[in-house]
Amino acid sequence: MTRSRLDRLTASLLNSNLDAVILNPGPTLKYLTGINFHLMERPVVLFVSPGKDPVLVLPELELPKVDLFPYKVQGIAYGENPSGWDDAFRKAAQALGLDAKRIGVEPRQLRLLEFRHVKAGAPEADFPDATDVLAELRLRKDKAEVDAMRRAVKIAQDALEAVIPQIKVGMTEREVASELVMQLLKHGSESEMPFAPIVSAGPNSANPHASPTDRKLQTGDLLVVDWGAAYDGYISDLTRTFAVGEVDEEYKMIHRIVQDANAAGRAAAKPGVPCADVDKAARDVIEKAGYGKFFTHRTGHGIGMEGHEAPYMRGDNMQVLEPGMAFTVEPGIYLLGRNGVRIEDNMVISESGAESLSDMSREIRVAG
Amino acid sequence: MTRSRLDRLTASLLNSNLDAVILNPGPTLKYLTGINFHLMERPVVLFVSPGKDPVLVLPELELPKVDLFPYKVQGIAYGENPSGWDDAFRKAAQALGLDAKRIGVEPRQLRLLEFRHVKAGAPEADFPDATDVLAELRLRKDKAEVDAMRRAVKIAQDALEAVIPQIKVGMTEREVASELVMQLLKHGSESEMPFAPIVSAGPNSANPHASPTDRKLQTGDLLVVDWGAAYDGYISDLTRTFAVGEVDEEYKMIHRIVQDANAAGRAAAKPGVPCADVDKAARDVIEKAGYGKFFTHRTGHGIGMEGHEAPYMRGDNMQVLEPGMAFTVEPGIYLLGRNGVRIEDNMVISESGAESLSDMSREIRVAG
Repeated sequence: MTRSRLDRLTASLLNSNLDAVILNPGPTLKYLTGINFHLMERPVVLFVSPGKDPVLVLPELELPKVDLFPYKVQGIAYGENPSGWDDAFRKAAQALGLDAKRIGVEPRQLRLLEFRHVKAGAPEADFPDATDVLAELRLRKDKAEVDAMRRAVKIAQDALEAVIPQIKVGMTEREVASELVMQLLKHGSESEMPFAPIVSAGPNSANPHASPTDRKLQTGDLLVVDWGAAYDGYISDLTRTFAVGEVDEEYKMIHRIVQDANAAGRAAAKPGVPCADVDKAARDVIEKAGYGKFFTHRTGHGIGMEGHEAPYMRGDNMQVLEPGMAFTVEPGIYLLGRNGVRIEDNMVISESGAESLSDMSREIRVAG
Repeated sequence: MTRSRLDRLTASLLNSNLDAVILNPGPTLKYLTGINFHLMERPVVLFVSPGKDPVLVLPELELPKVDLFPYKVQGIAYGENPSGWDDAFRKAAQALGLDAKRIGVEPRQLRLLEFRHVKAGAPEADFPDATDVLAELRLRKDKAEVDAMRRAVKIAQDALEAVIPQIKVGMTEREVASELVMQLLKHGSESEMPFAPIVSAGPNSANPHASPTDRKLQTGDLLVVDWGAAYDGYISDLTRTFAVGEVDEEYKMIHRIVQDANAAGRAAAKPGVPCADVDKAARDVIEKAGYGKFFTHRTGHGIGMEGHEAPYMRGDNMQVLEPGMAFTVEPGIYLLGRNGVRIEDNMVISESGAESLSDMSREIRVAG
């Protein structure tokens, strides 16, 4: 499997203006090797250049991992003293003849730590952005990948269903989040969560990126839960919004609007449609209802090994949807200082339309 | 509290050759602001320059976080289209007059994503490594920080004690890891774990950085558990090694050697002693026993908000220990393809010596 992934990357590089790419620990390296590497203070970098065995620079204590690769890799190990690290990177660049060449990078993943060592090893090289080449590699999910995501969705949904009856007025956001993580694990999520769940109520729910706090749930709050599970390296990323007891009529109304926007976004998704149209379908519903300025983010992002990857459901993104592409549809309305709503599903484009992997009720349910 | 931290950073900058530092989401930003930011595909960067209010570049949907700061911050928000992002960074650099100045960076944390936007906004600036200035800021833990670490250690120890009776031959490493994470949460760890626990047995235990696999525990295995909890933003990072049923005499012997090395490393730690001496004390025990080449990593690393931070217990590190410094002592012996042992404690330097925050039995205990 992963040999064919390396071959696909090599083919892409031959069709690009890049002589190589470098990868540090993260989803793309995992996709290409099947191996877990940690992002730490010791740099680990895989150099991939067509026609030659890849070269891996890594600390001595990680050297056994070279034998886990599904294809031949040249390992270049360095010791604990950072003064020797540049030298290991120089050897790697020399082994592949990369100085003064074009070495593609993934700026969202590569740190200045790795970059400066690679640059010291290949001082004349250029480092163009290879995000698109690398995103392309992981863009269309195969059946095994979709099956893993489907399982990650099921685990997440079952876990939240187990938490809902336990939610009570007076519990803190943090307590709900902690119980949710326990249920995710009990239902079979990998112990490395895709992200820390957002559990935010009342004014905190109006912040799309809130972290759970010690604020207690109060009657009248909206409660946003944005959570996911990980299964076999693939993740889910869902959101549902609840009413804590009886809530204001306006909050019920914005929930209904977001529910309609979510449905419109999901309905717009099919092969041949640009991402922008999915965003527009959801956004139009909210704008027509007069809440356009309270929907402050794009409608969705790609999903797979990461929570945020291509394709992005953004108004200016003309990328066309194709079978196998997977992404979220997650419109929201955020009334600053008061309450917020978001409803998020995970979609996969099929040959003729799109499937929502998530099917948990999107109605406003009462919790607490 | 966090205002005084900003003041300390400002004072350090005035004593350095830096005109500013930039921080992206990570422990230092959290330390300085008390606020959680996510590391994502949208860059978030705080610019700190003495004599002026800090400037925060962030996506529009995160703008409410500016009001959470414990001091005045100028927020510069950008929209969803990345083509406008450089402009926001240009405004930030201009607001602080930073073009052609020296802007310190944290290469281990800063990604090329943020770096390239900052560089586009201040094309004539230099970007020296500010790791030491920033590490210094967090190097000596105050009482509240040590109390949080003490609690994180207690949570971790109590959680593993609850798991040990459940460990059985035939369980997979992954199952043990999952149960351990559940117990960590039950005992009060934050739901964002400091790191995914290492649970590795038999040949996997000989890889210091193994990830839990589906391999089943077998009688005769050594079982390495490297785990930690998070409490109030501070973490613990411990390791104990168990025998699954009856194990080979050599494995009992290497466990005893590592136990002695751990004790020697802990005993060497006190104010005025260089980090290198702690490493040497532990390493000497293992070398004298003839297993020196199987101890493939440094003896420890600093600990606090992160698992790996200054000071590092490395043979070439002449940094002198001072009260409040916190770090691990974690010697190991790894017999490649066979079994491994590591024993790790969390130490804090006191006025006259050092305290181990962890006190769980270091003897070889039988599990399974």
